[in-house]
Amino acid sequence: MFLPTTTTAATTATTAAATRFLGAADVQRLVRRLGVPACIAGVAAQIETDFRRWADFDKSARVAAHSDVGVIELMPVADARRFAFKYVNGHPKNTAEGLPTVMAFGLLADVATGTPTLLAELTLLTAIRTAAMSALAARHLARPGSRTMALIGNGAQADFQALAFRDLLGITTLRLFDTDPAATAKLQANLAGQGLAMQVCRSAADAAQGADVVTTVTADKTRATIVTPAMLAPGRHFNAVGGDCPGKTELHPDVLRAARVFVEYEPQSRIEGDLQQMPADFPVTEFWRVLAGDAPGRATADEVTVFDSVGFALEDHAALVWLADAAARQGLGRPLDLVAAPADPKDLFGTLAPAGESARTQVATEQATAIAA
Amino acid sequence: MFLPTTTTAATTATTAAATRFLGAADVQRLVRRLGVPACIAGVAAQIETDFRRWADFDKSARVAAHSDVGVIELMPVADARRFAFKYVNGHPKNTAEGLPTVMAFGLLADVATGTPTLLAELTLLTAIRTAAMSALAARHLARPGSRTMALIGNGAQADFQALAFRDLLGITTLRLFDTDPAATAKLQANLAGQGLAMQVCRSAADAAQGADVVTTVTADKTRATIVTPAMLAPGRHFNAVGGDCPGKTELHPDVLRAARVFVEYEPQSRIEGDLQQMPADFPVTEFWRVLAGDAPGRATADEVTVFDSVGFALEDHAALVWLADAAARQGLGRPLDLVAAPADPKDLFGTLAPAGESARTQVATEQATAIAA
Repeated sequence: MFLPTTTTAATTATTAAATRFLGAADVQRLVRRLGVPACIAGVAAQIETDFRRWADFDKSARVAAHSDVGVIELMPVADARRFAFKYVNGHPKNTAEGLPTVMAFGLLADVATGTPTLLAELTLLTAIRTAAMSALAARHLARPGSRTMALIGNGAQADFQALAFRDLLGITTLRLFDTDPAATAKLQANLAGQGLAMQVCRSAADAAQGADVVTTVTADKTRATIVTPAMLAPGRHFNAVGGDCPGKTELHPDVLRAARVFVEYEPQSRIEGDLQQMPADFPVTEFWRVLAGDAPGRATADEVTVFDSVGFALEDHAALVWLADAAARQGLGRPLDLVAAPADPKDLFGTLAPAGESARTQVATEQATAIAA
Repeated sequence: MFLPTTTTAATTATTAAATRFLGAADVQRLVRRLGVPACIAGVAAQIETDFRRWADFDKSARVAAHSDVGVIELMPVADARRFAFKYVNGHPKNTAEGLPTVMAFGLLADVATGTPTLLAELTLLTAIRTAAMSALAARHLARPGSRTMALIGNGAQADFQALAFRDLLGITTLRLFDTDPAATAKLQANLAGQGLAMQVCRSAADAAQGADVVTTVTADKTRATIVTPAMLAPGRHFNAVGGDCPGKTELHPDVLRAARVFVEYEPQSRIEGDLQQMPADFPVTEFWRVLAGDAPGRATADEVTVFDSVGFALEDHAALVWLADAAARQGLGRPLDLVAAPADPKDLFGTLAPAGESARTQVATEQATAIAA
């Protein structure tokens, strides 16, 4: 007893895949074509757009699987239109094995149907969105006229931070420090000719001397004190990027106590940020409130501000939305059969019949084969 | 000022991708080659292996993003060696648009480094692992000698349930009911010649008549009562598959009260299962305890048992582990550059220089281009 729909299902295996894929090579090509500064500017604009409509998003702290050597996280967020998530790891010891500390990919899906629309490599974009977020926050939190930034930790994220602060804040001078001189040398080489004066410093405290902004982007998964109370100065802005998971901090608690502290998403930052060192009622301001005009950013020239950045799923949503649009404009990416698209969605089993055969014939063939075998 | 490492990074874009990809076409090919019964048997064996070492896994309830029309979920689980997650949606209205109700893909990653090792389509495997889980549970919970199963809901998952119960439990007769006669006709056509007697029934209650096992696999995202107290009978086993998210149930609370109830992972089942209708202290048994010999399965021939299945991440872990191995044996799949693999992992920025050029040259080229443009 056959219905026409069953026959259709059995004879057409699957329809075209709906998911667009941007691999590492595609994203690299895109960023090369547009240049890092244009990517940072585009992602920053999208982050600002998304953060201004904060209430539209279904937010949650990321899900983290911790091991002795690192962490693997899933970071989901959704509005009425799009679901986004990022997969990202953090394994500081990876570099010794020739692997990156951070690797990431992300997905956009259509909320109305659950169809994945974009799968994309996000390691490069994670660095770009982190830098864009930092610089966007600093535009509202750093002292106007800030020109000098200490950049403590000169690893894979540092180049992006430097360019973001140059373009979005007007930083002209970098004071560099890393425990590994090779990292600083790499950064200097990469940033040569970019209009940034670079001063190599002997210590984190040395780097902070005279800096309007102090950016920490260190990687060790240990409770460290990179920024001590001695590095406090009136009007200074601290952009604390590296303290981003339980047990991984960079700021001395007294630095937080002396400052007005801004975070991305408070429930997550209390677990993962430098904020994890503070009591549950330690006052912080979610940065979206500043963008939305709900809360003041920097109030006086003298106050100390901290952006306790951990990286929030909405920034990856912004990166993915920007990436989908930019890649489409550049004609990059290709379709990927990430999920099945059976011709008859009510008949998954029917997709297993070979093309040109009905389900019933296929069953008979399989049985004959089984008997013959 | 150049270091050799920087030059290497600048001249070698990325190394080979480490992630294996199995798309919908690959998985379809694999399942066709091996046959659905062999896939169910293989996945059931892996589920049993994984459930027996339950304590080794870092478990959490899945993260769900609900909308008016459906749900999108991320289901992570990890042991010391592998991190796994599945992306899966549930949109009952999709079939009206020619899309499947459920679409899924999954990932395996190396816990030691965070490297994604396998990305695979999981829509077919979701149906296979759900059926394998149901039948594995029934082997311990249904009355020995069970031969007749009511199959209520004859949609995309039903074919797989039928074959799993035939092979793992010894079911020989199916009593079929669906509100849509076309679904039942599809199921009959797909299962023709598979050694299963099929009786088309007028209602769910009719289907349950004389059945040793009652399987419900209905799809409406509403609080429904598919199984009423009138369908209780001594010794009957209820395999409740369709009630699997908040607001979506199939069993009348009195059916649960009359039975010993088994679940996969209690914290998740209390939110998503038919169990959501019961008080927080309603007694249930996690099924892994039965497999591990920690708790009894069916105790007497007369007791009523319920497997309140919602689908747990560990079953997808098992499906992915089985799939990785089976695909490797069959030579299926291909490498995918899902995450970047820079030659110098400390120099992500350096990967943006074109091959053959140093980072410094690249910067100069970009600037020249910008000036010329």
